[in-house]
Amino acid sequence: MGNEQEIFEMHERHRGVLGIEAEYDVRGKEELGKLYTPGVALISRAIAKDPELRHRYTMSGKLVALITDGSAVLGLGDIGPSAGLPVVEGKALLYKDMAGVDALPMAIAQLPVDEFVDTVANIADSFAGIHLEDIAAPRCFEIEDKLARRLDIPVYHDDQEGTAIVVLAALMNAAKVVGKEFSQLKLVINGAGASGIATAKLLHAAGLSRILLVDKEGLVTAQDEGYNPYQRAEADNPDGLPARSPLSEVIEGCDAFIGLSVADALTPEDIGRMNQRPIVFALSNPKPEIDPQLLGGTDTAVFATGSSQYPNQVNNVLAYPGLFKGLLRAGVKRVSLDLEVAAARSLAQLVAQPRADKVIPGVFDPGVVDAVCAAVENFAREHTIRTKEQAE
Amino acid sequence: MGNEQEIFEMHERHRGVLGIEAEYDVRGKEELGKLYTPGVALISRAIAKDPELRHRYTMSGKLVALITDGSAVLGLGDIGPSAGLPVVEGKALLYKDMAGVDALPMAIAQLPVDEFVDTVANIADSFAGIHLEDIAAPRCFEIEDKLARRLDIPVYHDDQEGTAIVVLAALMNAAKVVGKEFSQLKLVINGAGASGIATAKLLHAAGLSRILLVDKEGLVTAQDEGYNPYQRAEADNPDGLPARSPLSEVIEGCDAFIGLSVADALTPEDIGRMNQRPIVFALSNPKPEIDPQLLGGTDTAVFATGSSQYPNQVNNVLAYPGLFKGLLRAGVKRVSLDLEVAAARSLAQLVAQPRADKVIPGVFDPGVVDAVCAAVENFAREHTIRTKEQAE
Repeated sequence: MGNEQEIFEMHERHRGVLGIEAEYDVRGKEELGKLYTPGVALISRAIAKDPELRHRYTMSGKLVALITDGSAVLGLGDIGPSAGLPVVEGKALLYKDMAGVDALPMAIAQLPVDEFVDTVANIADSFAGIHLEDIAAPRCFEIEDKLARRLDIPVYHDDQEGTAIVVLAALMNAAKVVGKEFSQLKLVINGAGASGIATAKLLHAAGLSRILLVDKEGLVTAQDEGYNPYQRAEADNPDGLPARSPLSEVIEGCDAFIGLSVADALTPEDIGRMNQRPIVFALSNPKPEIDPQLLGGTDTAVFATGSSQYPNQVNNVLAYPGLFKGLLRAGVKRVSLDLEVAAARSLAQLVAQPRADKVIPGVFDPGVVDAVCAAVENFAREHTIRTKEQAE
Repeated sequence: MGNEQEIFEMHERHRGVLGIEAEYDVRGKEELGKLYTPGVALISRAIAKDPELRHRYTMSGKLVALITDGSAVLGLGDIGPSAGLPVVEGKALLYKDMAGVDALPMAIAQLPVDEFVDTVANIADSFAGIHLEDIAAPRCFEIEDKLARRLDIPVYHDDQEGTAIVVLAALMNAAKVVGKEFSQLKLVINGAGASGIATAKLLHAAGLSRILLVDKEGLVTAQDEGYNPYQRAEADNPDGLPARSPLSEVIEGCDAFIGLSVADALTPEDIGRMNQRPIVFALSNPKPEIDPQLLGGTDTAVFATGSSQYPNQVNNVLAYPGLFKGLLRAGVKRVSLDLEVAAARSLAQLVAQPRADKVIPGVFDPGVVDAVCAAVENFAREHTIRTKEQAE
């Protein structure tokens, strides 16, 4: 990651890693009259008649607000809105470099849910989409739900949907590698925060029905009022295990372990209790749920982490640039579970021959953004046709 | 201004006139590690310890929020937030092209004052300054005051301070042209909205004490409770005229008329009642307070408008790009009246030999931005020294 001084210098040189770009060079009265007054009054009058035209004639038609409140930043926890800015700036840089998507990093104060939603809604006319980032559970669920209902632009929470899409893609290919039917997989998701719940939700939408959700207290069950409704809605318990059973018991006979929790949450003994040819995704960052050096004594068949140091890096950057590029190109107003499954499938299919050390494309593999973008555009097209046919 | 179709095409081609620019091209794991995770955690941790560092290491240190609610757009009135976007985009384009300042066009819903202020304050950590635009009086005064008190970044309302600075600059030179002492000028400001009041306030700060404020009801007086406190605070009445005296009586014996009102508010007969060698600024847009063709029968000595069709265009673009460039470079947290006077003086001094048809620089004259920027930086430097000396 380079030496520390160099990193500080790179972020200080331009004050951050992004700037505003002028699409025109106004150097005389004639351009001034077209791009500013008096010509701009034509555009303003057109939008006053039809506010939707703002997306055609202003930056609001392409700009994604990349919003954090800094309450749950990667491995750093609740560090506050300002300290969350470098992370959203980095993501906005990748949006631009990888997909040509214009995204604006924004820090919003840590407000009660309704005030936070109001603040975003109050500024939403300026944007083509909302990408939420690093907002703690469970408030992130309510914020996203309320915004999606209130706004007519796509709302997306990367820690939820982004993670879920990439995990689903990797799991589809991992099932092929171990020769198991995807829909028959029994799995444990360790970690019942934003990413764990969203992953469970998307895997359910993709056809899985045996997803055991575990947090540090043990197995989450639908009846356990110690958990929030978002957690309980995704909690399967096919074998009727007692509430809060420990991971070491829940993992018995599972085909896959998906860790979205903390370092060292998984032991080689746990893996030993899994079904044959186990799939282990240890996605905690920066340290995975199990040290890869401890895998030697196990029969782990596919191993993935969130780190670039090992094969199979499950990284959200595989999803969001292409996803939003597609949403904006197709004018999609809502990020649905079916759309996310389509995006995941396109990512999985990019790996022509899945192998144990290649169940997911690399972050810089060519074609990733284009594939996800095309999947979203195709989904939107088919969805429109389906909706039309149903109406007829 | 070109044909209408061309103007629509220019605004549609790139969806607006601005985009986001990447300062780095992330093409491999090494850059990724420096500009995004894991390297970015260093920056986040530093800002978590000292939130002020966000201005050094993120885009928030250079980005100006150019905010409108579309309630008072140039010559169009209350057209709503979305329809206000093209105007703030045009201004943001000029910020970048003329001064290299990064400004983000934003539409915010037309909320009650306190909710509007809350919304801006909630997102303020993302920005280095707030430029308010096209917000109706009197709510613009309260919004600006409350934001300036609450935030530690400069807050500026272009319709107020921008207009006032350029009018002051033009008036300083006009006084020279007609051979009158600036501080002795007696003048009428026609229009008691945002720009009229702000102009009266700045001219007071620059040493004038005979400013007669008139609106469509007539002369504003300090005792008249039909006017708001912002209007009454700027209302001089040196000759003790009756409240709401008509413009035709108030203008008697004035040296200058400053129109910030509506087309055709001023007649040749009104000018005939002014002092000898009258100064007439007819700044209403797009049509001035008096048709220039009607000036023939008057002895008007200096004439200015808001239009580029005539000499002496009083245009805010002479002020704000250099002003904000200077504010950001010098790290100024507050736009004071003294600072505005300094900016106006620098603009006036750019015209080495003021003439009747040249009391203010042209919008594209070289050196305008640099002069205003330097004036702000010098003011900040001297102000710091003065404050230090006073403390000693």
